Amino acid sequence: VGFVAEESALTDGNCTRDSSVEKFEIVFPGLPHKHCFVQYGRGLFERAAEFASSLVSGRARAVIVSDETIASYYGERLLSNLNKCNLSTELIIFPPGESNKTWETLGAVLRGLVEAKVGRDGFLIALGGGVTGDIGGLAAALHCRGIDWMQLPTTTLAMADSALGGKTAVNLAGGKNLAGAFHQPAAVFADLDTLATLPLRHFRAGLAEVVKTAVMLDGELFSQLESSPLELLEQDNSRLERALLACARLKAGVVTRDEREAGERALLNAGHTIGHALEAAASGLLLHGEAVAVGLVLECRLAEWITGFPPAGTQRMINLLQAIGLPTIPPEGIDAGRLAGLLGLDKKARRGMVRFALPADIGKPHVSGREYTSPVEIDKVMSLLGRMF
Amino acid sequence: VGFVAEESALTDGNCTRDSSVEKFEIVFPGLPHKHCFVQYGRGLFERAAEFASSLVSGRARAVIVSDETIASYYGERLLSNLNKCNLSTELIIFPPGESNKTWETLGAVLRGLVEAKVGRDGFLIALGGGVTGDIGGLAAALHCRGIDWMQLPTTTLAMADSALGGKTAVNLAGGKNLAGAFHQPAAVFADLDTLATLPLRHFRAGLAEVVKTAVMLDGELFSQLESSPLELLEQDNSRLERALLACARLKAGVVTRDEREAGERALLNAGHTIGHALEAAASGLLLHGEAVAVGLVLECRLAEWITGFPPAGTQRMINLLQAIGLPTIPPEGIDAGRLAGLLGLDKKARRGMVRFALPADIGKPHVSGREYTSPVEIDKVMSLLGRMF
Repeated sequence: VGFVAEESALTDGNCTRDSSVEKFEIVFPGLPHKHCFVQYGRGLFERAAEFASSLVSGRARAVIVSDETIASYYGERLLSNLNKCNLSTELIIFPPGESNKTWETLGAVLRGLVEAKVGRDGFLIALGGGVTGDIGGLAAALHCRGIDWMQLPTTTLAMADSALGGKTAVNLAGGKNLAGAFHQPAAVFADLDTLATLPLRHFRAGLAEVVKTAVMLDGELFSQLESSPLELLEQDNSRLERALLACARLKAGVVTRDEREAGERALLNAGHTIGHALEAAASGLLLHGEAVAVGLVLECRLAEWITGFPPAGTQRMINLLQAIGLPTIPPEGIDAGRLAGLLGLDKKARRGMVRFALPADIGKPHVSGREYTSPVEIDKVMSLLGRMF
Repeated sequence: VGFVAEESALTDGNCTRDSSVEKFEIVFPGLPHKHCFVQYGRGLFERAAEFASSLVSGRARAVIVSDETIASYYGERLLSNLNKCNLSTELIIFPPGESNKTWETLGAVLRGLVEAKVGRDGFLIALGGGVTGDIGGLAAALHCRGIDWMQLPTTTLAMADSALGGKTAVNLAGGKNLAGAFHQPAAVFADLDTLATLPLRHFRAGLAEVVKTAVMLDGELFSQLESSPLELLEQDNSRLERALLACARLKAGVVTRDEREAGERALLNAGHTIGHALEAAASGLLLHGEAVAVGLVLECRLAEWITGFPPAGTQRMINLLQAIGLPTIPPEGIDAGRLAGLLGLDKKARRGMVRFALPADIGKPHVSGREYTSPVEIDKVMSLLGRMF
């Protein structure tokens, strides 16, 4: 353990700070008993197991939910840590990948919880990346109408973004994340050592969420990323650690103020409106983070038109994403008509209009009054995008 | 419209009372914007449609979720009422019955919501009995991570109990209601005219929930039920109307004080712990309410042993249920071992112990300190029940 985070990363009053800077707590005001203990560091499995065991009463039962790949790397070790803490735990695994984030997989995980005899007092540990957090978290939300859970993110994407904030979901045939719930985890333990097994393509893709957070909320972070983007790709580099923790703290601040995305939280959807549609249109060709990278570029172009975002900012965005090794233009063969149809299915869409979270400048979101998103007609989006395809 | 409810039925300060006594509002303290408008009466479809339309902004879309039977009776009429109010609505139907309250049916309803292009600002109307409320409510909880919804109960069971309080769930292979959520409806419109199409067996079964509410919370209501039980079976009888409304008001008071079943709400599970296990063990032979009726008798016996419930009370319970035409002993051929196993799967079970909500006397629950349920070893339950099989 033990890396020093930027002292300036956390300014929100609702997040209390531990003397050891890699830990903090998210407190949801108005929701009593809703705390989320967060720790970023190395070699954290033992601590995570102790924490889980301390939360669970007496002889209640727990499960680890994980995909086959991550379970093969870390499943046995975590099980052994939990058993040492006298937490009776079983492992529920499912096939890896976004294509398995389905209603059917979720049903199988829920049956697994019943078979493992996990009761209302039971506990669920999601060990893995964004897909695992989404499936595990939604299973925890639904099992016995809600049990406690924690996340052990093992990807850059999950550590920078998805592990915090309690959004859970699975995909339906009609679109991404269409069935879900808000269900806050009791804790997030991000063990940076687990990034050692993350394939480079996934490692890069997750960094798109870091870039997203920076462009919307932290211009200084964006500049730091620009100054040495290749260091972000070294899993044991302190610059990567600081960037991930900065994103976690920034996100914690946002979700503390707006858990249910009534306003500010929508800012974190930057790059995702076009990104989700592209991800679906590309039918598995693009990883989520890769689609978000392209979405960030296209939405920066949209922002030039709508919020006065500087064209030089779009160029900085393109340069940074390319330096990380992420795509900045849609893959060939994406059908524009299909993309337009998918944009209309966006959860934020309303009858021909779709809402975008856009930057006003690098590190500064466009906010108009209490509106954190800008409505744009899908036809106009497509005519703008048409020039870039 | 227009029947006069007992003035004494509502004493809780959190329920505000309309000048017309068949309406009231459930307010959840600590949950801002969480109000549930409740109305019991006749010929309410038009009002319900107006209410739904007033809740939904601009051109947002709505769906009615209903089973094939209820949809064939009332679907077109309600659709027409909603269209008159300019609420663009589609009908999503599924096959009727508890055996269809499955993960698969819920998945199909969610796909229907996507196909109907219902957005985050959309609305769902559950038209039917307990199964429809459970499926429709859980679909509303999950679609886009939660949309607004209302219930139009059409059964005695739903009007007396399940339509209020926001519990939603589907069954999994391992047991009843194992996957679910708390998701409060924005309104409940109980149109007593719809009881005209309810088959007598279902009509009777739902009255078990009336008896349950009375034995736990209202001794005077229990006496009224005893005084003329046959009038409860007349769908246009004012005694039935008063009994259903009394249950709704009593339940509203309980869920106002304890939405998430941290304590008091567990009292409403009387008869259901054994009832759920019996229902599953009987594999479709018993309706939910019939299983609850048998469960109430068996749990009264348990209460004699544990809370000092008077044996004469158990006899009154048996007489009342028999007068209504409900079963009071388990059907033949129920396997005791299977029943014990199913009791162990109860959501309230903890490693060999299961918790029961028991009466101390007719109309009076057993509450010990802040404990609203009593833990009993499953083996002891089975040895007691063994004598009654």
